[in-house]
Amino acid sequence: MASPVLKTSVSLSLLQRLLSPRPLKLSTSPTLPPRRRSAPAPATAGSLTVRSEVSFATGAHLIPHPKKVGRGGEDAFFVKNSHNGGVLGVADGVSGWAERNVDPSLFSKELMAHASSLAEDEEVSNDPQILLGKAHAATSSRGSATAIIAVLEKDGTLKIANVGDCGLRVIRKGRVIFCTSPLEHYFDCPFQLSSEALTQTYSDAVVCSVRLTVGDTVVVGSDGLFDNVFDQEIVSIVSASDDVVDAAKALADLASKHSLDSGFDSPYSLEARTRGFDVPAWKKVLGGKLTGGKPDDITVIVGRVTNS
Amino acid sequence: MASPVLKTSVSLSLLQRLLSPRPLKLSTSPTLPPRRRSAPAPATAGSLTVRSEVSFATGAHLIPHPKKVGRGGEDAFFVKNSHNGGVLGVADGVSGWAERNVDPSLFSKELMAHASSLAEDEEVSNDPQILLGKAHAATSSRGSATAIIAVLEKDGTLKIANVGDCGLRVIRKGRVIFCTSPLEHYFDCPFQLSSEALTQTYSDAVVCSVRLTVGDTVVVGSDGLFDNVFDQEIVSIVSASDDVVDAAKALADLASKHSLDSGFDSPYSLEARTRGFDVPAWKKVLGGKLTGGKPDDITVIVGRVTNS
Repeated sequence: MASPVLKTSVSLSLLQRLLSPRPLKLSTSPTLPPRRRSAPAPATAGSLTVRSEVSFATGAHLIPHPKKVGRGGEDAFFVKNSHNGGVLGVADGVSGWAERNVDPSLFSKELMAHASSLAEDEEVSNDPQILLGKAHAATSSRGSATAIIAVLEKDGTLKIANVGDCGLRVIRKGRVIFCTSPLEHYFDCPFQLSSEALTQTYSDAVVCSVRLTVGDTVVVGSDGLFDNVFDQEIVSIVSASDDVVDAAKALADLASKHSLDSGFDSPYSLEARTRGFDVPAWKKVLGGKLTGGKPDDITVIVGRVTNS
Repeated sequence: MASPVLKTSVSLSLLQRLLSPRPLKLSTSPTLPPRRRSAPAPATAGSLTVRSEVSFATGAHLIPHPKKVGRGGEDAFFVKNSHNGGVLGVADGVSGWAERNVDPSLFSKELMAHASSLAEDEEVSNDPQILLGKAHAATSSRGSATAIIAVLEKDGTLKIANVGDCGLRVIRKGRVIFCTSPLEHYFDCPFQLSSEALTQTYSDAVVCSVRLTVGDTVVVGSDGLFDNVFDQEIVSIVSASDDVVDAAKALADLASKHSLDSGFDSPYSLEARTRGFDVPAWKKVLGGKLTGGKPDDITVIVGRVTNS
């Protein structure tokens, strides 16, 4: 592991900081003698970090796209306190269906309604991928949607199934320790469940899990959140609020504010530039760059892990 | 889900592309009638995407820091074909120990040697966090290291325990579908296992899992890889090579090349700028910015999921 040598001219103070060897662990006196840890007992998975049964305290907030307020936007979500520690879901209707005179909100809303209902079935809700597949199969509306479902087991295991660019973050002690990766065909064309054949199905979901402990915070949202709010901002808001309802509202409000700010260098505009979209060359020469938030439906669910 | 409206002046072709509604699913004729999927059978977790027992075909490559070639660098790794589908591990010795006249490579190498040996114990290697904890407890060298261990179960579940800024990516059909998040106290000071007390332990590991299927590729590496090579580059190299040994070497070679390129705008320099490190203001006015790779030990393991 090397010193972080960067090769351009930086001020001396920055150089000193960047060129120093990587620091040792924190909070230990250099004079402390080495101490050996005792061998950890072969424990079961959940017992390492979660010593009692857990569940979610949840808050949620949805802000429709400014031009779609009339029908409540095209996002949908549910929160279910079921037999396990809780089930959360978000779906985001694909707006392109409006060109075919199909209301893009119908599919996402029906999908989440079925998922919420099916979450009461203990066998189905043990597996978020199966839950997503059964909810999809039950949905009769025309349309398509991205979707994520997360199931918290009482031992602290959070199971996730994700199709498209909804997302999930886990925040522990002021850090993002886990995040999902969006699934796209190409920039801004996510994987999606649909009423049509030859599209993605529940079997295309990324299925993963992460072991949680009491005090962890889970943030689930549509891309309207993650395209407009950086992870560090999510951490700041979540860490500053003891109340999950307040935190969800604050995150949605910040996403909404950024989404309408043409000068904000959002995660979305950063990604667009990475993919080759930018201002004309003459503007770049003058220091210009493509910026701006992305107006969208914004859904945020905040779940804090608590003792049951 | 809204049109991606960005607010600055972009060329018309870009505007047209960016302002269009989000597209529907691919590969379906607009004239196809809606078709209903049959309800998915309540299958067991593994049977959804993995229909037979799986294991890893693996390749690995390590390139020491140019100034540490003599002792082989401070990274260490192991690959074990054990009773399950395979166990992979990478550790990265913390260079700051050299200031105390301690060889930073000893701790990481002993840690991985113990982990490799313990991976033969079926009970221990079922849980990468327990495996990491037992390897740590058995290590008597002075020093500290970041470490990641990944265990592939034969049903396709990849279990991961991660302390610090080693990392893991899963690539499926040309996309990163899963990645770990680095754990740091602050920029360039990662969580680390140590010979000293009052530091992180196995219980501070992020423990997660992801369900794999035949054909998926797992890339595990030290930060020397991920600080110098973008995910899209990893995808390109992995997708272009049928041979995991060639792929691991190509990734390490690219990381090494970038690490020594003062003009390369690396993931590390991007992150440094995000954290507030940059060239002096007068250089920024002239369009300058902090760039450069990060010379480091570079370890890459590539594992492709195959039928057993």
